[in-house]
Amino acid sequence: MTDVATSIQDLVDALPPGVVLADEDGLDKYRWDRALDPAAERPLAAVRAECTEHVQVAVRWAARHGVPVVPRGAGSGLSGGASALRHGIVVSTERMRAVTVDPTTRVAVVQPGLLNAEVKQAAAGYGLWYPPDPSSFEICSIGGNVATNAGGLCCVKYGVTTDYVLGVEVVLSDGRAVRFGGPRLKDVAGLSLHKLFVGSEGTLGIITKVTLRLLPAAPPAHTLATWFATTEDATAAILDITSQIRPSMLEYMDRASINAVEDHLHMGLDRDAAALLVARTDSGDPREIAVITEACERHHATEVLSTDDEQEGELFVAARRAAIPAVERHGRLLLEDVGVPLPRLPDLVAGIEQIALARELTIALIAHAGDGNTHPLIVFDPSKAEMAARAQLAFGEIMDLAIALGGTITGEHGVGRMKQPWLESQVGPDVLDVIRRVKDALDPQHILNPGAILP
Amino acid sequence: MTDVATSIQDLVDALPPGVVLADEDGLDKYRWDRALDPAAERPLAAVRAECTEHVQVAVRWAARHGVPVVPRGAGSGLSGGASALRHGIVVSTERMRAVTVDPTTRVAVVQPGLLNAEVKQAAAGYGLWYPPDPSSFEICSIGGNVATNAGGLCCVKYGVTTDYVLGVEVVLSDGRAVRFGGPRLKDVAGLSLHKLFVGSEGTLGIITKVTLRLLPAAPPAHTLATWFATTEDATAAILDITSQIRPSMLEYMDRASINAVEDHLHMGLDRDAAALLVARTDSGDPREIAVITEACERHHATEVLSTDDEQEGELFVAARRAAIPAVERHGRLLLEDVGVPLPRLPDLVAGIEQIALARELTIALIAHAGDGNTHPLIVFDPSKAEMAARAQLAFGEIMDLAIALGGTITGEHGVGRMKQPWLESQVGPDVLDVIRRVKDALDPQHILNPGAILP
Repeated sequence: MTDVATSIQDLVDALPPGVVLADEDGLDKYRWDRALDPAAERPLAAVRAECTEHVQVAVRWAARHGVPVVPRGAGSGLSGGASALRHGIVVSTERMRAVTVDPTTRVAVVQPGLLNAEVKQAAAGYGLWYPPDPSSFEICSIGGNVATNAGGLCCVKYGVTTDYVLGVEVVLSDGRAVRFGGPRLKDVAGLSLHKLFVGSEGTLGIITKVTLRLLPAAPPAHTLATWFATTEDATAAILDITSQIRPSMLEYMDRASINAVEDHLHMGLDRDAAALLVARTDSGDPREIAVITEACERHHATEVLSTDDEQEGELFVAARRAAIPAVERHGRLLLEDVGVPLPRLPDLVAGIEQIALARELTIALIAHAGDGNTHPLIVFDPSKAEMAARAQLAFGEIMDLAIALGGTITGEHGVGRMKQPWLESQVGPDVLDVIRRVKDALDPQHILNPGAILP
Repeated sequence: MTDVATSIQDLVDALPPGVVLADEDGLDKYRWDRALDPAAERPLAAVRAECTEHVQVAVRWAARHGVPVVPRGAGSGLSGGASALRHGIVVSTERMRAVTVDPTTRVAVVQPGLLNAEVKQAAAGYGLWYPPDPSSFEICSIGGNVATNAGGLCCVKYGVTTDYVLGVEVVLSDGRAVRFGGPRLKDVAGLSLHKLFVGSEGTLGIITKVTLRLLPAAPPAHTLATWFATTEDATAAILDITSQIRPSMLEYMDRASINAVEDHLHMGLDRDAAALLVARTDSGDPREIAVITEACERHHATEVLSTDDEQEGELFVAARRAAIPAVERHGRLLLEDVGVPLPRLPDLVAGIEQIALARELTIALIAHAGDGNTHPLIVFDPSKAEMAARAQLAFGEIMDLAIALGGTITGEHGVGRMKQPWLESQVGPDVLDVIRRVKDALDPQHILNPGAILP
């Protein structure tokens, strides 16, 4: 296609040397995100923007030629929201990494390519804290966090990404760069459009700058690790705890994920336990430690470890964070992100066990249990077509189950391309119609991340 | 107009007796909100909906006849967002007052007519807390709070209304009732549309149900009241405090508002002081009390009162809350809601003093100082046309000043009709264009609250 080749050359020429990558081998890096979507294709080119203007040039070029644009942060997405398209380009913000902090207003202004851990670090330089903490915080970008409204472990107390976003700069589908909100702790002038872009997964615009609210430094936490002989006991303890207090972390691992982590890290975890809860309280109120301990004991915990030592506590949290890569060593994963209102959590956990049994699959279960958000990890061998098909069936059945329990197909990872077929059955045709109207209003050509969220 | 009369009769007949009010005298109650917008007109009818279906019937009728609909909560709005229109109807949600609380997930599902104080009370029944606390919390409705993204005194630490909204049910401009979000602590399936409706001031839909996140009961607070001989000292102390800690309240009153409250309540406030700061810390860390005390002393506070006694502390907070009605006794008010990034707060306060001098007006200043959000109260006599004109000039000049300082024309009250002419100069034509596109997408006939936010 000489036409496309000529056009791509126009794009290359319009940007500084090295910004546009159009050679085939290098482009494989921009083909998949961490979901390893089998449908991902090699893109025409990747634009490694160094500033907002580069993003504008790329989007204007794409709009002129009707070429789809897949925005990309660090490529750590788990829903195929950054799977590349054969006739599209990828706009990567990995090189946009500036950050400034105003300690008086307690806000940071950040470019999207900075990693979550680096935002935390910049804030810490002023004695401040950026709370949202996806397990992948050391490798995921703040732009991707905003695009997916990412969650994490401390969200049960501290909220999710959107709770920290005061403003965004966005390149719209026609190439205009527009600022919504900003470094004002309160501002209700006009519609809350910055909140609309949070979690929009690159379908409405490309985020090129973010203004984030920061908190005072995190208080010291007390960590408890409690073991259970049945998953029913563990989920009952979770509801008992959340009915009484709001912990600063309440994480769950099942036997399969405990064993996968133990295989990998050799920490001395109890391989026979059905479930491990890792709970934290940072309120400084010792009664909360007692509430957690008593709730676990009431529901037959086999062991309760309790520590004020940061490093010792961090070991258990690290075990939880290591679960996805550890389970991944046992096969390819289909990674779920289903959530339910808390009272339905026991039904969700039991239902997932049933699906694993019925489909004869290993489904390791980890969860941000305190907010009802679970990550069933469906393990399969991609070289075995029949097994891959069963995994795909289980993938859908787990989302159907969550929907039937009044829950969500995605608590924090996003819909992307891989969960798109289930969205309507969760939200219904009217919500989908409103999503479509908003999309049509802001991206009438549908060039921005087509296939994510909407079909 | 027989046509309209016939149509109104259709609406009356379509709803149960007493729901539609169409008699002229009763309608004056639905003409103004608390902003007393002189442009407000007597509406054709007021629909006092008792359920979502009543709202749907009213909106469908309005859509069929192309009649504007002004949604109304408790009528306590301060920007003329609920000023009625002569050829329009008012849809009031004052009778929709149900609430349920799920203490395990810590959420409340609330109909819009419940007052903010009643939501707090319902939560308190389960040992939980709904934080946002507009000064008018005893007379404002939760529906109005969500429609304006209302703030309050504790927002400096606990955030604003949107930070607590997990979901909304909305009647759209075509009469469909649609649910966005819900009782899931994390849910990123589809666009964050519930957040778009928060702060949309009735221009995109009528909110008929809200799912709110609740917190554990508020911790006990330590209150400090500190007096200053100059406003410069007071604002310097504010920045000194916020650069070191995040208080749970940091309120400001100037001499005019101190004196107005003292005239009204006879509390023994210092009439000679230039400013009073009311600060609270509820972290339980006594070092925060020392930080506040030392910051105030460093900036020449003339007196620092400090108390752990809830009732004594509440007296100072009550003085601050009483400021608007107290100043209102001295004349009609033009009530501002301008905010700036915190480092510009001293410039804003000084600039407002300049405008008061130049326009020979009393402008009492109260502020949620800790988040840079101020309420200059411009006092005038509406029977004196020349003075009213000066007041109107000052009203605009204060907004122009805030914009020049990188601030906002409205921190928590909303744009409504009265600040609409200044919106574009704050946000710019591109943001206004995006607002208009979203409006066109969701309310193509522009029947929902026309004149609010958009011209």
